[in-house]
Amino acid sequence: MLVDGKHFRTIWDNDGVVSLIDQRWLPHDFRIETIRTVEDMATAIRDMHIRGAGAIGAAAGYGMYLAATSSSSSSSSSDPRKSIRAGAELLNAARPTAVNLSYAVKRQLRILSDTPDNDLGNTALTEARAIADEDAAACKLIGHHGGKLLEILSSGKNGQTVNVLTHCNAGWLAFVDFGTATAPIYEAFDRGIDIHVWVDETRPRNQGSRLTAWELGQHGVPHTIIADNTGGHLMQHGLVDAVIVGTDRTTRSGYVANKIGTYLKALAAHDTGVPFYVALPSSTIDWEISNGLLEIPIEQRGPEEIRYATGELEGKTQSVLIAPAKSPAANYAFDVTPPRLVTSLISERGVFEANEEAILAMYPEMR
Amino acid sequence: MLVDGKHFRTIWDNDGVVSLIDQRWLPHDFRIETIRTVEDMATAIRDMHIRGAGAIGAAAGYGMYLAATSSSSSSSSSDPRKSIRAGAELLNAARPTAVNLSYAVKRQLRILSDTPDNDLGNTALTEARAIADEDAAACKLIGHHGGKLLEILSSGKNGQTVNVLTHCNAGWLAFVDFGTATAPIYEAFDRGIDIHVWVDETRPRNQGSRLTAWELGQHGVPHTIIADNTGGHLMQHGLVDAVIVGTDRTTRSGYVANKIGTYLKALAAHDTGVPFYVALPSSTIDWEISNGLLEIPIEQRGPEEIRYATGELEGKTQSVLIAPAKSPAANYAFDVTPPRLVTSLISERGVFEANEEAILAMYPEMR
Repeated sequence: MLVDGKHFRTIWDNDGVVSLIDQRWLPHDFRIETIRTVEDMATAIRDMHIRGAGAIGAAAGYGMYLAATSSSSSSSSSDPRKSIRAGAELLNAARPTAVNLSYAVKRQLRILSDTPDNDLGNTALTEARAIADEDAAACKLIGHHGGKLLEILSSGKNGQTVNVLTHCNAGWLAFVDFGTATAPIYEAFDRGIDIHVWVDETRPRNQGSRLTAWELGQHGVPHTIIADNTGGHLMQHGLVDAVIVGTDRTTRSGYVANKIGTYLKALAAHDTGVPFYVALPSSTIDWEISNGLLEIPIEQRGPEEIRYATGELEGKTQSVLIAPAKSPAANYAFDVTPPRLVTSLISERGVFEANEEAILAMYPEMR
Repeated sequence: MLVDGKHFRTIWDNDGVVSLIDQRWLPHDFRIETIRTVEDMATAIRDMHIRGAGAIGAAAGYGMYLAATSSSSSSSSSDPRKSIRAGAELLNAARPTAVNLSYAVKRQLRILSDTPDNDLGNTALTEARAIADEDAAACKLIGHHGGKLLEILSSGKNGQTVNVLTHCNAGWLAFVDFGTATAPIYEAFDRGIDIHVWVDETRPRNQGSRLTAWELGQHGVPHTIIADNTGGHLMQHGLVDAVIVGTDRTTRSGYVANKIGTYLKALAAHDTGVPFYVALPSSTIDWEISNGLLEIPIEQRGPEEIRYATGELEGKTQSVLIAPAKSPAANYAFDVTPPRLVTSLISERGVFEANEEAILAMYPEMR
């Protein structure tokens, strides 16, 4: 995607060094971080220098590459396999909810277990690039399928503005390129469809106002930031034609784990008859579990993200205390939307209902 | 209620001067503002030095008193009736959604129209005090009725902690004393019931984290601040036993206008079988209208409240920019919850269903 007119991915490699866009400073400051060790990659994931389902997956893939090269190039006598196993554990522990992370780690472990010691680095790099490329290709296809849905909505309104609401950032910053929830929006916009996006600010970390608004702005897509409380009111008054969100993990039966608050928007969409779409590359589907409400672990983050708000003041990123000094806070990062509230899933293969039968019809190899 | 152990109301008079707690500086700074003119009172209401349904009503009552005395004591030859009418217009225009404001203004206009010129000030003061006293008395009774509901929930859990979720501030800061949504909580807590409150931070103005958390803390009630996105997840996992919110205006058929985001919590409560209570003094009921979704005007406030977050930094109240410099924002202040999502209303007269028949059974004089 474009940043000041120049094409970027969220993560890439160059001469054995991995670079990523450090999202902590956006929208006020565009910074690139270079990562040289798996430990630094785990920190970048855990502390959300890079975040979002697909981007975390690509970061984990590259993290495994760094683990493999640190061991193979190390002058110490340590077992390179040990270094890879330790890297895998470190990465898996960095964030618990997104399935892409463990998917990428597993994929690297599998291929590296069949690789001779002297080829670990090359193989891991090729695999890391493949994970990133596949993510970008899947998002491009999601844009194709989802863009058609928006085109139909536009026709139904005789070309009047199509209003899409999105929550958090399932934009290109959350993936390697294009994004999931945003891919249909970019596709429709590029085809000349009159589109406007309501951007949930997405407390506590404001990924909506900080990241989604920023990347929509970079692409020129008309958008308006709203408080997370607002979507229900807009839907009640016909001001939303579709909700499109991403997901950090969707079960084989269609339960959707996504940023905390997604369930509330799904309820409002259901109550007001607004279609509720979840865009996802199939790497986000967890084929192992079924009931997401019972089985998906929900990350709890530090209370300071709730007690403070972070933004720009006098040219610097600063945090203001928005709560009484002594009041405690709780910070659940995700919630789970049951399949009955989801109109359709949009993946790289097409548009289908959120139930096991429909999902397996689209992915027969997973039966 | 208590502030550092000393009893306060949110607004009071002394020697012809009206004083109020200036809520803009809470929770970090407790400031009292003195108001000497109706113009200053209109500013205090519009710019939310004082906010909340009952507190706005009391402020409007006192504002009319200031209008009446400014005209009667003025050395100019202006008609005191003219001054009262101008004051009424000014106050009515200050905030559009809460019915208590226009209720208090109407009540003063009615009584002053039957009052001789030389008694306007005294009459208006007596009426302003009556409006404030009635608000406090109604809240006390809401605490009595709602406290019983919490006692029943506590018994049903064999005395285990009762978890209540509330949105915005319908606490004593929003009224003259006790509050509405908080009155049952204070009542139950004072009776020794084990209670814990989930406090929605309530973006964009954070009345939950700034005000509700502060006043619960002053009273010693255990509480935890959460992002507005969180309530649905908590309800899905059995961590909420009841939702209690206030209202800025409820129609005779039970539509509830309250702080933006209330509708989303009502949907989640309905979806998960959690009782959803609305606490209100009957001054908040708009007997003139029926369908709240169509008929209640929804205030839109400035976009800067969304684009910035305000809190304490280095001992000062400061605002940080949390959005891209060029992204627009929209700021709808209220939404309307339909009666089908409301378990019960709790007023000074008791607990009853949110439909016209049940409401009129409780207020037969309004038939």
